[in-house]
Amino acid sequence: MEFFPAPLENLVEQFARLPGIGSKSAQRLAFHVLNLPQDQARAFADAILEAKRSVTLCPVCQNLTSGGLCPICASPKRDESTICVVADPRDVVAIERSREYNGRYHVLHGVLSPMNHVGPDDLQIKSLVDRVAQGGIQEVIMATNPDTEGETTAMYLARLLKPFGVKVTRLAYGIPVGGHLEFADDATLMRALEGRREL
Amino acid sequence: MEFFPAPLENLVEQFARLPGIGSKSAQRLAFHVLNLPQDQARAFADAILEAKRSVTLCPVCQNLTSGGLCPICASPKRDESTICVVADPRDVVAIERSREYNGRYHVLHGVLSPMNHVGPDDLQIKSLVDRVAQGGIQEVIMATNPDTEGETTAMYLARLLKPFGVKVTRLAYGIPVGGHLEFADDATLMRALEGRREL
Repeated sequence: MEFFPAPLENLVEQFARLPGIGSKSAQRLAFHVLNLPQDQARAFADAILEAKRSVTLCPVCQNLTSGGLCPICASPKRDESTICVVADPRDVVAIERSREYNGRYHVLHGVLSPMNHVGPDDLQIKSLVDRVAQGGIQEVIMATNPDTEGETTAMYLARLLKPFGVKVTRLAYGIPVGGHLEFADDATLMRALEGRREL
Repeated sequence: MEFFPAPLENLVEQFARLPGIGSKSAQRLAFHVLNLPQDQARAFADAILEAKRSVTLCPVCQNLTSGGLCPICASPKRDESTICVVADPRDVVAIERSREYNGRYHVLHGVLSPMNHVGPDDLQIKSLVDRVAQGGIQEVIMATNPDTEGETTAMYLARLLKPFGVKVTRLAYGIPVGGHLEFADDATLMRALEGRREL
């Protein structure tokens, strides 16, 4: 029994390979694209190729950029002596959105994960150590996720960087703003108690 | 504050335009594509362009095909005297999967919907009437969805086609196989009672 014409089947398959897209969604998306005007379909295809072609890593902080230094590393207004270490470019966006941080970043592109065979050489760790070794850095803030792998990565990096005489800090844990004590898990409550401050 | 490099933002936006893809999913998909090997990203882009380029409508049944007559219309094994009318190419696939039907199809590419400004001229209705007018058709089976618009479309077509002396039928309504009476809605139960058969 034939189903869809081969080029359409192929497009469905391409969509089905994307994370979180099941076969029914893939079909729906492929039909949507097939029904797009020619120029919009071409714009979609071009966006894929152009993103692959022109998005590179900043040679300093390893964040995504479209050529050369990223805007944050290139900005003279940002504090050069502080580096915030994150696992993913999306974390940079989250922190920038808070408008609370004025230093530089370093993007690891992952976290240490022996289970998934991710070791120090698979991450942007050497480039971080090189930055710190060059001097001029006073504080490195670990902003990996507060899960086991994020914690392990932060501890590992802290040990690597301490010999250079920099201050290594970690984002505070606690009850999220707007959160309910009732729904906080034990570990979070424990950390919130540990980190309590005088009013 | 800058967020992602422009080409990546553009790719996120392209994904966000797809139906059922929110902004968080669009970001996730764009990052996934950005991390694909070059050849896989190119294959995805090519699949879009190739589907747009080579998928056409069968000149007889208006189903999707990759050039010329669709395989069903081209097959001498299919009964030429029966046409099953469906709203969407996906419905053809659903019926083919049942392996119960050996006639031909006609794909309307939509249903009549005054609310959405879809009138008879926006659907493949003239091509259906022409097929029936040419003769040789004994039965036209309406297989539009059993909702208001599907029903209205089926009734409209039945009235158009009756003058040509063909038998116009409708798929049976009733309790779905494996379904529970308990969960069947009133309209379905009523139709199931109306359509009861002797055992």
